[in-house]
Amino acid sequence: MKLASFKHKGQSSYGIVDGAIIRDIGAAMGARAPTLKDLLASEGLDDANLAAASPPPLPLSEIDFEPVVPNPGKILCVGINYATHIAEAGLPTPEKPMIFVRYPDSQVGHKQPMICPRESSQFDFEGELAVIIGKRGRRIPTSEAFDHVAGYSCYNDGSIRDWQFHTTQFTPGKTFPGTGGFGPWLVTTDEIPDPATLSIETRLNGAMMQKAPISDLVFNVPQLIAYCSAFTILNPGDVIITGTTGGVGAFRNPQVWLKPGDTIEVDISSVGVLSNTIVAEPDD
Amino acid sequence: MKLASFKHKGQSSYGIVDGAIIRDIGAAMGARAPTLKDLLASEGLDDANLAAASPPPLPLSEIDFEPVVPNPGKILCVGINYATHIAEAGLPTPEKPMIFVRYPDSQVGHKQPMICPRESSQFDFEGELAVIIGKRGRRIPTSEAFDHVAGYSCYNDGSIRDWQFHTTQFTPGKTFPGTGGFGPWLVTTDEIPDPATLSIETRLNGAMMQKAPISDLVFNVPQLIAYCSAFTILNPGDVIITGTTGGVGAFRNPQVWLKPGDTIEVDISSVGVLSNTIVAEPDD
Repeated sequence: MKLASFKHKGQSSYGIVDGAIIRDIGAAMGARAPTLKDLLASEGLDDANLAAASPPPLPLSEIDFEPVVPNPGKILCVGINYATHIAEAGLPTPEKPMIFVRYPDSQVGHKQPMICPRESSQFDFEGELAVIIGKRGRRIPTSEAFDHVAGYSCYNDGSIRDWQFHTTQFTPGKTFPGTGGFGPWLVTTDEIPDPATLSIETRLNGAMMQKAPISDLVFNVPQLIAYCSAFTILNPGDVIITGTTGGVGAFRNPQVWLKPGDTIEVDISSVGVLSNTIVAEPDD
Repeated sequence: MKLASFKHKGQSSYGIVDGAIIRDIGAAMGARAPTLKDLLASEGLDDANLAAASPPPLPLSEIDFEPVVPNPGKILCVGINYATHIAEAGLPTPEKPMIFVRYPDSQVGHKQPMICPRESSQFDFEGELAVIIGKRGRRIPTSEAFDHVAGYSCYNDGSIRDWQFHTTQFTPGKTFPGTGGFGPWLVTTDEIPDPATLSIETRLNGAMMQKAPISDLVFNVPQLIAYCSAFTILNPGDVIITGTTGGVGAFRNPQVWLKPGDTIEVDISSVGVLSNTIVAEPDD
């Protein structure tokens, strides 16, 4: 099952994607679960409940995608978690997962523009697998980690490199408004029991820039869930973005920066393709 | 004016502290502004509005303090922002503010226990000035920064040092549940036009551990607001904790770690004293 958040006629909602249509579950649930995060927290993903809602279908062509979860309580980002990216960054392999944070108001949905801020020309892409939490937990053992996952999606952890490296702490370069692409939808775990079987590719204007099997992760999904849930509570709707592989623009020679008009895609097998165009931030 | 969040007879609210009593503004506002963050966002701090609510007084002895803002959208923490702390950490003076993040569910209020997690025995204190945002803004110039401040409070940015230094990124050691003390209340800017005139002291079981004038900040409050609002929107209720001065436990010889039964206080002139006791985390 594919679940997406969207806006239709000015109203935010979420629903089940089925081919070229989406069923508006949010409209049917109403105040019981006004957002996908609420659905994950309260109603769960029980097919029967969702089917019972019998929402009318909308053509995908009539909706605007929002970030899969527009309002996660936590977006935990993993740094240097692929051997190829560790090598290009010239860093030692970390002994623990490297965790930093971005904020929900930095996100955009599938087909929404990603914004290069006025403060920088060093806007870079990072194609990543996103894990969406479905069940609350603290100190989740790796053996139970998949039970806490609602599903998977694509993420473009768009990075303002000069601001990322102002100091040792990455967050300032990782949370500019409009820099994080998240979509197009969440694919539930019944379809993807273990994302290690998937592969990820990032394309810039159609040209392959990053490509790796998800099994190349230094710390895999259960290990990341175990580590993060040791220091913070994971709640439904929280997102872990699992790190990027080699090939980002900053470490190419010559460097490649995203510029207005570019199209950047993150393609994960069995999940889908997140596509965003780059725009320059308008003047005030 | 002093504003505090609290719990009374199981109900969360907020109010104005006046000597030994607190007026329950939250009860009077009801659904118009159920939390202090909502008050800051919607009603503002207009004395007349608050007075018009005419809430009944409660003795402070009958309430449990909650974090001043229990539910901030963003808690932006500043690293190494005092010369004495930079020296003890053996780091160069940063050219830009060092910003990392903690989450709201890591916070506790005045007189609530701060929790040493099972994962570590390296629980350290960091007395800091907290700035609470009162007015939304992006790209706020330093000349307008104070207009965006609702008030000031004390913060103990309690740190799990081994987890802070698992990698270069600090957040895992800065957001364990129950590690961040925030209180006792917010003092509004009419009483503190510029916090650079204040001084801060941290005491462990009554013994002075940290002491500095706030004017020692490398990046002052307007500069921090300008920097942070460049990369993210600041909203009412957001918190910037401005960094700690020299004297933390980790850099002492011998090192000093917080242990169950300790009392740790952060005392800021014209603001008040935040006091917390340390407890070991109970078994499941």
